[in-house]
Amino acid sequence: MDREKELFDIINAIEETDKTKSDEAEKYIDSLIKPPRSLGKLEKIAISLAGITKKIKNNIDKKRIVVLCADNGVVSEGVSSAPVSVTLSQAVNMTRKITGMSSMAEHFGIETEIVDVGISSDYNCPEILDRRIREGTGNIAVTRALEREEVIRAILTGVECADRAKSDGVDILGVGEMGIGNTTTSAAVLAAISGLAAFDVVGRGGGLTDEAFEKKKNVVDKALFRFKNECNSTKDIIEILGHLGGLDIAAMCGVFLGAAKNRIPVVIDGYISIVAALCATKLNERVSAYLFPSHKSKENGYKVASKLMKMEPWLDLDMGLGEGSGCVLAFQVIEAACAFTNNMATFKDGGICDDYLKDIRKQER
Amino acid sequence: MDREKELFDIINAIEETDKTKSDEAEKYIDSLIKPPRSLGKLEKIAISLAGITKKIKNNIDKKRIVVLCADNGVVSEGVSSAPVSVTLSQAVNMTRKITGMSSMAEHFGIETEIVDVGISSDYNCPEILDRRIREGTGNIAVTRALEREEVIRAILTGVECADRAKSDGVDILGVGEMGIGNTTTSAAVLAAISGLAAFDVVGRGGGLTDEAFEKKKNVVDKALFRFKNECNSTKDIIEILGHLGGLDIAAMCGVFLGAAKNRIPVVIDGYISIVAALCATKLNERVSAYLFPSHKSKENGYKVASKLMKMEPWLDLDMGLGEGSGCVLAFQVIEAACAFTNNMATFKDGGICDDYLKDIRKQER
Repeated sequence: MDREKELFDIINAIEETDKTKSDEAEKYIDSLIKPPRSLGKLEKIAISLAGITKKIKNNIDKKRIVVLCADNGVVSEGVSSAPVSVTLSQAVNMTRKITGMSSMAEHFGIETEIVDVGISSDYNCPEILDRRIREGTGNIAVTRALEREEVIRAILTGVECADRAKSDGVDILGVGEMGIGNTTTSAAVLAAISGLAAFDVVGRGGGLTDEAFEKKKNVVDKALFRFKNECNSTKDIIEILGHLGGLDIAAMCGVFLGAAKNRIPVVIDGYISIVAALCATKLNERVSAYLFPSHKSKENGYKVASKLMKMEPWLDLDMGLGEGSGCVLAFQVIEAACAFTNNMATFKDGGICDDYLKDIRKQER
Repeated sequence: MDREKELFDIINAIEETDKTKSDEAEKYIDSLIKPPRSLGKLEKIAISLAGITKKIKNNIDKKRIVVLCADNGVVSEGVSSAPVSVTLSQAVNMTRKITGMSSMAEHFGIETEIVDVGISSDYNCPEILDRRIREGTGNIAVTRALEREEVIRAILTGVECADRAKSDGVDILGVGEMGIGNTTTSAAVLAAISGLAAFDVVGRGGGLTDEAFEKKKNVVDKALFRFKNECNSTKDIIEILGHLGGLDIAAMCGVFLGAAKNRIPVVIDGYISIVAALCATKLNERVSAYLFPSHKSKENGYKVASKLMKMEPWLDLDMGLGEGSGCVLAFQVIEAACAFTNNMATFKDGGICDDYLKDIRKQER
């Protein structure tokens, strides 16, 4: 109960971003030597960053991707193409920088923090941060995933990651995951929040046969049926995560909340990440202004979640790897936005006649 | 006449990319520790690169954006929001790294080569490479833009830029431009090649009022009417560029051809760039395999050109600046593709059970 109060105190204390600073940034960007709005969403990124950091010129030198790792009991239903053991293998491999996300992150000088919030087997790898709440979750097809208390502890673990990023001087965070079965739990959580059916939010994850894909939809239906009998709130995010979620999703939700708490810009990766971000915005709408999209996941439900959040992803690469791989690329886009804002000349010092803007300035952003 | 033979000898000597090496790369990428195809287009990039360089593992350390600068006589019709003088101002500003593209390129350690192929006024800026063919073009609403001989010289100038990149050890090229009025000439060239009407390919460029936008469409219609009376070939790219083009488009077309000639991967920027790339592929279809897209320009005609070329842009950022700005971001995407290919573990050395792929391997790429 104390922990629940702690969590909601954090959630309720999240500040709005600085609208005045964003307006100032917009005005400054309009003074740069280019047709207004011609850098499109790069301009919007710079404007959003200003609201978060209260500075017009920003740098994202220190970048970190936090990867929340956990197992899911629902894997026993046969909803995944990979065995449970892959969660641990890949968590270890990430610390060695030899997975998809981590190999790319290493190339770009991006830090990674690999956090165990619920891996289901023991191991010896000190580079993984041990914050295990329990060994995997209940099988959502037949029972709750987590107790309410466990959900809250997982979310607070995510907040702790963001607090640590703050004290380490991290300029921007990305949120990734590793958890076999987590496209199934994400679909269930998204269906519960949106009121949509399994059909609309279930995808093929890491790659499923037609048969396994049908089974996955049935499992989500079953979980939703159970949820509706036992709870059926579309508002109580903690209960939704308790019935249908995963420890990874809950902890990721906590990183998003914690980033907003600490005024750190934070990047969403793919499907699981955006469902966790959606949970965070449902806990406090103010979180939205701290969030940046990355890529359009090829997983079906991504589109549903991004629409609910009014987020338009920047990259369209048919990716569906997870781990935080999209964050690597999004960081480069954000760096570009910082670079033009910091280094372009204004019309005053750039030698271009200011007159030519007189007409186009009239147009709305 | 000798120059025309020189050009077509170059065009006809362009080699196919190495299908065997691409297949080998695909097989290697499928052996990496991730669900097959989960890195989507990043995988396709790595596969294409292998075909170009004949190596599975690639690096794009030395990156260069070539910016072709030229003025367009059609500006006298009032089709542009900016005065002619901006072409020169921005060319100079690019050498100082204070424009949109150049400020971002500088941040990422990307070289820029600013080439004057037809700026209409004199200046003193030794950092601009002087390859001026003539001072601007004829006004396409009433006359040819260029003589056939001038088009060929402009294309050969672009090829020279790619040859220089090769001897400088450049790993990847981007192709940008600066030329007030060049969204008008690009629209005219695209309409002539595609058979579409001005309505389908004309956009607002740097920002136009409704009135100026209508005028721009009329000007393109007028140019197309003249072209159809005087020539009306949809195949003779040299004549199309002579009637409707710009020196920038012709020279950019040359950079694309030259990149393919030298087996250098080359990135398309936005609207003008993709129209130039389309011209290059019409001169030799083999060029396509050396091309990479970047972002979806907000200019109307981009979509038309990208569809004709079966190219799907990677980034969707509502950008419409030109200069090569999209190439800056595309280079980061390509770097990411190189990073995962070079540094991920294979299933053999990654400690994940190979069995879990037995089902999903059956699926087609």
